[in-house]
Amino acid sequence: MPRHIRLNAFDMSCIGHQSPGLWTHPNDHADSYNTLEYWTGLARILERGKFDALFLADVLGIYDVYKDSPRTALENAVQVPVNDPLMPISAMALVTEHLGFGVTCALSYELPYPFARRMSTLDHLTKGRIGWNIVTGYLDSAARGMGMPRQVAHDDRYDVAEDYMQATYKLWEASWEDGAVLRDRAGRRFADPDKIHRIVHEGPHFSFDAIHLCEPSPQRTPVLFQAGASTRGRDFAARHAECVFINGPSKKVIANIVTDLRRRATAAGRDPRDLVIFTMMTVITDTTAERARDKYNDYRNHVSEEGALALMSGWTGLDFGAMDPDEIVHFDKRANAQTSALEAFTTADPDRAWTVREIARHAAIGGRGPVVIGSAEQVAAELHQWVEETDVDGFNLAYALAPGTFADMADLVVPILQERGLFKREYAPGTLREKLFGAGHARLPASHPAARVRHSA
Amino acid sequence: MPRHIRLNAFDMSCIGHQSPGLWTHPNDHADSYNTLEYWTGLARILERGKFDALFLADVLGIYDVYKDSPRTALENAVQVPVNDPLMPISAMALVTEHLGFGVTCALSYELPYPFARRMSTLDHLTKGRIGWNIVTGYLDSAARGMGMPRQVAHDDRYDVAEDYMQATYKLWEASWEDGAVLRDRAGRRFADPDKIHRIVHEGPHFSFDAIHLCEPSPQRTPVLFQAGASTRGRDFAARHAECVFINGPSKKVIANIVTDLRRRATAAGRDPRDLVIFTMMTVITDTTAERARDKYNDYRNHVSEEGALALMSGWTGLDFGAMDPDEIVHFDKRANAQTSALEAFTTADPDRAWTVREIARHAAIGGRGPVVIGSAEQVAAELHQWVEETDVDGFNLAYALAPGTFADMADLVVPILQERGLFKREYAPGTLREKLFGAGHARLPASHPAARVRHSA
Repeated sequence: MPRHIRLNAFDMSCIGHQSPGLWTHPNDHADSYNTLEYWTGLARILERGKFDALFLADVLGIYDVYKDSPRTALENAVQVPVNDPLMPISAMALVTEHLGFGVTCALSYELPYPFARRMSTLDHLTKGRIGWNIVTGYLDSAARGMGMPRQVAHDDRYDVAEDYMQATYKLWEASWEDGAVLRDRAGRRFADPDKIHRIVHEGPHFSFDAIHLCEPSPQRTPVLFQAGASTRGRDFAARHAECVFINGPSKKVIANIVTDLRRRATAAGRDPRDLVIFTMMTVITDTTAERARDKYNDYRNHVSEEGALALMSGWTGLDFGAMDPDEIVHFDKRANAQTSALEAFTTADPDRAWTVREIARHAAIGGRGPVVIGSAEQVAAELHQWVEETDVDGFNLAYALAPGTFADMADLVVPILQERGLFKREYAPGTLREKLFGAGHARLPASHPAARVRHSA
Repeated sequence: MPRHIRLNAFDMSCIGHQSPGLWTHPNDHADSYNTLEYWTGLARILERGKFDALFLADVLGIYDVYKDSPRTALENAVQVPVNDPLMPISAMALVTEHLGFGVTCALSYELPYPFARRMSTLDHLTKGRIGWNIVTGYLDSAARGMGMPRQVAHDDRYDVAEDYMQATYKLWEASWEDGAVLRDRAGRRFADPDKIHRIVHEGPHFSFDAIHLCEPSPQRTPVLFQAGASTRGRDFAARHAECVFINGPSKKVIANIVTDLRRRATAAGRDPRDLVIFTMMTVITDTTAERARDKYNDYRNHVSEEGALALMSGWTGLDFGAMDPDEIVHFDKRANAQTSALEAFTTADPDRAWTVREIARHAAIGGRGPVVIGSAEQVAAELHQWVEETDVDGFNLAYALAPGTFADMADLVVPILQERGLFKREYAPGTLREKLFGAGHARLPASHPAARVRHSA
């Protein structure tokens, strides 16, 4: 039996996420990102399509590297305005029963103690459907919003992240033992204080002395998502992540990343299959190939290529506005996750040179990721091929139009994948972690570093 | 025409809020605080009863002053576990149309830039129904959770708060001008960058350089709630607050506080009626006085007087567990908000002495606030008398049983208040601020300090 393909929808509490300018299309509803109707409507579409999770990106800052100004981003609604991704989750949980929520929260700007409470609360309210996408941030503008001149250096951010993980694992896994909560009305005892422990954490970056404020939630630690592309990032993902979000232009590139990630997971003492790896993709589909192509051409009339350069400048730290449009972009192999955005282009075909203009054109739909255009049958076949050839577990699907791109996937492609035995017909029961890893896996396995902080039974 | 009485429901994402031990009553549902069903059910009851708002308390810490240990709080679920109050709001907003949400967020532990985004997001998603209860915290255990040995001194906390308010006002009121957002699909311009401003804040405690991440929400600045009881606290409330939450044992005490607050508002250049003042109260009612009294007696069998002492110790900073139960408690007139909890008792009747045992008994239902027991007619008359004699605008109603106490109020008392012309029959249209202050008042008035940071038109 073939493995089932996993699907996340990739969205953000903003208007122009990966396809800048398409908010101007008459069928696009991304600009109602600030209403509950948008989020509950999206959640219902995704549950109808048996998507595993809604993956919510976030960035606490503005894309102001391009032309050294936020003007382009603001005019084109390029990931700004951007609302807090956590706030609509409980409304979406109310209208769904199975959909998971993988939400991006930067650990650079909130202390472990209140953050651990936020995640535990969401895990309770969603009955165990919450995931946390661990990010450290990549925009200096975000750091300036916090009163710092610039962000912490890339590798130092991973040192901070490692300490942060240890701190939150202790709060989630070690503060309240299983069995601490009694809820004994007759005996008038809510909890057994002997099974509730103060966490005294003395790390290099964080220290505190506190009892976790929440009783154990269904998953305790939320399902951990991560998207590190650099060497440090991949090691971090291999050590901590359960869902890894990767990105690359071709099956060949993705196959290499998947192999490397699974190898690193093994080296970290984990089962390589404990990583569920999603690669980014934008699918434009319809009932026939011709209609899909027409749709794509229609969309192209609404893109903002300048918006795409604002995104690319933010991702890479390079000001494409200061370059000639016909200048060839050279890939600078600094050991920096930010360059992965460029690497996506320059390694796709090592013999091909990319100009600024070509990058803008390419990135204007689907950002850094590949775009698949075709009939539902063609798309289903193509997704299957990606999985077969790369060993990836599934796809993080960006939208061209919101929520139309997701509805097309749910209503046209998913039924074909189901017929071919490549996609679940029903959700598995239980928490998000159980849906991903099977019955009995509501909590992190013993091979995960979070398990090491637990009290022995 | 008499003024309409305002009603808030006072709850918290925990089990034992103001009436410790009552979670053991068979009709109490407070221990489902960690489900969406609890919160959406509560919201529906409150909207049915035309409550103005749900006022959500919060504390980032544990009541461990009593006997120098968190044991009593943990065993009796005295405000612990306590979940994040922000998380269920969007679900409640989805099942209601008018109910406001006044949510407590401590400014001591989150920077203005991400916090302002959280509030703007909620204001968008609720279509202008969000309020912020400004607190600085009162438990050293919270500070230890943040890696500090203890909290900042009381008056210094108000200096920090003043700077925090200026910082957030700038983000909410001055970063995006009215008219900055165009949403012009045909012209392909989402916003006019010339009307969007970087905020460079250089305060004594906070500094940053950033554009607010959110487009203007219906109210911009959330409706501001505050509960300062000390001299500094009252000055802060008179300067910034729109809704003030006070607490006192008798009409006489409350009348003095109301007079003082309105005088201070005038001194701060504001209309004294720009303060909507709520006093705390717990109502136990039924169809007849006898049934209400029976209800109260039944509830008393479930209280935890030791839990009440754990609460009082946390509020006052005094360890009642180290005192003899028959010891008389002396009111120590330090200029500290924490002593207001004791003041509530000792000033009720200056000639009466209170023992530890008496305080425990009194505080076990309704915490520091008065408890009104009677038939719905009697309660309606009593509430009316409080308003007449104290000039208070309404009540912050704590629960004995959740959500039963609120349902009793909505279904038994509110209809009588409506018949007597003392309570609205329908919600006013518009945002929470418009519902409280009338049409055209979606934004803060020119006399409020937030208005001073605005760009002139």
